[in-house]
Amino acid sequence: MRVPNHIGIIPDGNRRWAVDKGLSKENGYSSGLNPGLILYHLCKKSGVKELTYYGFTTDNTKRPANQRIAFTKACIDAVEMLSKEDAELLVLGNYQSPMFPKELLPYTKRKTFGKGGIKINFLVNYGWEWDLGSLTSNNSSNRKIISNCLKSYDISRVDLIIRWGGRRRLSGFLPVQSIYSDFYIIDDYWPDFNEDHYYKALEWYNTQDITLGG
Amino acid sequence: MRVPNHIGIIPDGNRRWAVDKGLSKENGYSSGLNPGLILYHLCKKSGVKELTYYGFTTDNTKRPANQRIAFTKACIDAVEMLSKEDAELLVLGNYQSPMFPKELLPYTKRKTFGKGGIKINFLVNYGWEWDLGSLTSNNSSNRKIISNCLKSYDISRVDLIIRWGGRRRLSGFLPVQSIYSDFYIIDDYWPDFNEDHYYKALEWYNTQDITLGG
Repeated sequence: MRVPNHIGIIPDGNRRWAVDKGLSKENGYSSGLNPGLILYHLCKKSGVKELTYYGFTTDNTKRPANQRIAFTKACIDAVEMLSKEDAELLVLGNYQSPMFPKELLPYTKRKTFGKGGIKINFLVNYGWEWDLGSLTSNNSSNRKIISNCLKSYDISRVDLIIRWGGRRRLSGFLPVQSIYSDFYIIDDYWPDFNEDHYYKALEWYNTQDITLGG
Repeated sequence: MRVPNHIGIIPDGNRRWAVDKGLSKENGYSSGLNPGLILYHLCKKSGVKELTYYGFTTDNTKRPANQRIAFTKACIDAVEMLSKEDAELLVLGNYQSPMFPKELLPYTKRKTFGKGGIKINFLVNYGWEWDLGSLTSNNSSNRKIISNCLKSYDISRVDLIIRWGGRRRLSGFLPVQSIYSDFYIIDDYWPDFNEDHYYKALEWYNTQDITLGG
């Protein structure tokens, strides 16, 4: 079975899950922590080399404050949880903004936790405009030069993106790294994650003809 | 019904269609011309304001020469066909490369044909690296400034991308304009286009909750 090197995770549907459960929207995020940890272990077991979680974006911070506080806390908890595992961990996002939680500043340079191994990227207060904002005027159309000028230069091409919650869009997720990503949608909400979602996504990816435009 | 302002078309599957018909791969492209024209008329009738066709990319030009010649000819024919309709037509792509057909040079500045009206963009020898390659060193994270620095500055945000041929990927299609695009996949190959594909895509788009991250 052809396993993707790099999987991107868009863990959507937390608010809709909460509303379905009769909770208020901000109460959906904490139930996304455990799925994130299970998924990490599944990826490690499959031999995935890099995993990127979409935490929150600069656009998301325009939501009501109680939601913003709740998803920020969930991201802090998730990163601290992952730092107890074996990982090469990086938190990437606009850390110069007040929306970036100071608790995560120590993670904005990639660091090895435990025995390292799998690269984990966690996008926090990420914006595509922030990522592309430092492209220099070399006026080069060389892909390597462009990629090296991105703020996300340390994140490699994403092979497979899995999005929970049924929406069929990227919502600003790493526009350059996802140029050739295969995109798999799961209708269930992220807090309703189960292992089968992951295995179905891998099976599907295995049937895709990866041509990179050739 | 909420009609998308801007639809992106990824007309994939021409080669697979040809092979299924017992033809050689390069014979699949010319059968994509008529679908393109029908789609133009459907979009115009629905009130779509802008339509972008994915012709070929810098990556595609690495395919065998007979295929490259065939898809280049199909793009020339398609643009000339559309120039006989009412449209504000622009061909966008790296026109400084030998892979860009000289027949299409007159179309690289937007021009009004017939009574104008709908904006039509046709990507020819387009590469994401070419598009992003002239981002200047303003070091700005302002979305408008970034968008205005793109080679594709005259192409607006894409609301709905429809891809034929079953693949679930963008393959480099306008990475900045497709940040929030909803992505609809049709398993049939592009030469097997029928009107129902289009109407089903519009119906699906109508049910999507467009949040732009909010």
